[in-house]
Order: sequence, then C-alpha cells, then structure tokens
Amino acid sequence: MPKRPEKRDFPVSQVRRYLEPGPIVLVSSRWRGADNVMTLGWHTVLEFSPSLIGLMVSSGNHSHGMIRESRACVVNLPTTALTDAVVGIGNTTGAEIDKFDRFKLTAEPASSVDAPLIGECHASFECRLHDDALVERYNFFILEVVKAHVAPSPQRPETLHYTGEGVFMVSGKTISRRAQFRPERLR
Amino acid sequence: MPKRPEKRDFPVSQVRRYLEPGPIVLVSSRWRGADNVMTLGWHTVLEFSPSLIGLMVSSGNHSHGMIRESRACVVNLPTTALTDAVVGIGNTTGAEIDKFDRFKLTAEPASSVDAPLIGECHASFECRLHDDALVERYNFFILEVVKAHVAPSPQRPETLHYTGEGVFMVSGKTISRRAQFRPERLR
Repeated sequence: MPKRPEKRDFPVSQVRRYLEPGPIVLVSSRWRGADNVMTLGWHTVLEFSPSLIGLMVSSGNHSHGMIRESRACVVNLPTTALTDAVVGIGNTTGAEIDKFDRFKLTAEPASSVDAPLIGECHASFECRLHDDALVERYNFFILEVVKAHVAPSPQRPETLHYTGEGVFMVSGKTISRRAQFRPERLR
Repeated sequence: MPKRPEKRDFPVSQVRRYLEPGPIVLVSSRWRGADNVMTLGWHTVLEFSPSLIGLMVSSGNHSHGMIRESRACVVNLPTTALTDAVVGIGNTTGAEIDKFDRFKLTAEPASSVDAPLIGECHASFECRLHDDALVERYNFFILEVVKAHVAPSPQRPETLHYTGEGVFMVSGKTISRRAQFRPERLR
C-alpha cells in the first residue's frame, strides 16, 4: 500500500493547480456515521475566490445522497500509486461494501467539514456545498473548498486522467511558457 | 504552422474520451460577422446523452458575450503543436485583435452551428447553448455537443493541461485497466 504523505496547508484559492489539469479524484463523504468514497472524473474549477468547484455526481452513485444530505465532501487527489484502488472504488458501490476497509484507505479527520480525508492521497480538499441549484436537474454540485491539504513533494505528482473504456492517461512532462504570459494573467 | 488534420465524424455521446482528461481547449465563437477564440481550462463533462458539457467562461472574456448572444460555440482540442497559439490566444483579447488572423488559424465552416471550427486542432465539437441558468451567477454555460469531428490519428494526441503560473502538464503514457472493470461500467 502507498504511504500516507505528510501534508501542509495550501491556499484554497490555488487549488486549480491540482484540479484544472483534469485528474481523476476520489470523493469521500460521511452521513449518519458511515463513510464512503467514489471515483470521479467529471469536475471543473469555477472560481478562485471564493474557491468554487463543480462536481457531477450521478444520482445512481451512493455518494450522491450522502453529499446532498451532509452538504459536504472531501475531494482527494490520488496518484498512480493508487491506480488499483481508483479502479476498484469505481467498480463497487458503497451501498454494499465499506470501501475504506475494502481498499485499505485511512480515513483521517478533516478540520472544517464532517467527512473523512483519505490519508494515502497526495492532496485533500475539504468542501462545503455552496449551491445546490443544479443538483436536481444535472446532478451538479457547486462546492466551496474551505480547507486544502497538499503533500509538498513530489512537486509534480503522477496523476490519472480517465479517457473511458478502462483506459487512463498518466500525466507527463511539464513545460513552462511563463515568459510569454502577461503578468496579470499569471495566477 | 501545424497542418490541418483530416477529421471524421465522431459520436457525440463519446466526447468524454477527449474532454474528461482535462485538456486546455480553444473555444471559438461568431457574433455579428466577427469570429473569436479563447483559451479555456475550466470545463467538465456533464452527461453522455444528450451530450452535455459545462464551460466556465469569465464575463471578462470577449467570448462570453459572443457565446451568450449567439447561443453557440465550438470547443476545439489543440495538441502541443499549437502551444504557442494557445498561450498567445490566452494573453490577448478579441476586443482588440482578430485572433484567427494573428495566430494564423483557419476558420472552417461548422455543419450545425454558426461558429467556426479551428482547422489546425485535433478535434472540434460543435455546441449549442442548452441551459443558461447559471450564466448570470457563475458564468457557467451548459452546452450540448451536437456534432463532433475528430482526426483519426494520432490515436493519443499530445494534449496540454494547465496548472497555472504559465506551466502546462503534457499528456503522458496510457495504461489500461479494462480487465478490472465491470462490463456495465465500460463506456
């Protein structure tokens, strides 16, 4: 099993650093004493400050009701060390099994919401439901990231990006074009 | 300049193949005879069928009003061959320059919407505004992909994934875990 990396506080206004590239995330939730986690690839950043993100959580997912009722969740960033867990979590349901137990994940206490962090992930973003206007129609949750925890190394974690049909793209090299940016666009 | 790859029709219900991994896209639009294009990283898939996607287009962008008024746009997928154009487009405004001309992009006719395809991109997804309920509050456009054009090769184009601060992650290798998926989850 992967280790549980030490994490540090990270500015919530900068979570786009980790989410904008489009990685698969693990969304953990808690409701009536039970914890659950799901694999999710349909998400977007919506605003820097307040730090808003949007998640499409299908109503067929056990997590849907848990997030809706508890009005909170944690968005965790797994690396390729967790590939088997990511796939296993996406192919089972919290209605039938305890996924933290089955996939040997460590539920760590959050500081601002009542939902578990996943210790083995590279980063964890504590979220509160900000606006449920589109939950009924599109299963789209608008959440505010209220606390961010990120492992300081590696600086460029190897993330998973889902393409469908059981195939993941893995993050590759990075290139900087910083010198070509207007200063006011550098955020 | 990159070539203009031949494209083929692609099933609109499967555009997640290209968008779920989270690439930077170029969004092209047309309004009152003028064409424009913007660089965008804040988007998500919302539904397979109808093929819905969501784009956060800040109201500070010239494209915002064009998409809002024309109720259409094209989401184009650039590869790393277009990195300089992607950066240039993101650091200029269509209120001042003709970006198709400046960045030597070829505006090709769409089949279903009144907005230009970008010939040099690997794929182009023609979109109609499906729901503007969140445009006012969050600049979030819910669009239906009504026609998709994709170059058949390369099968795994090298895409750009923005992390902020002028730095892009480039798509790397792919790994298949197809054998570990439940058949009904393979879409």
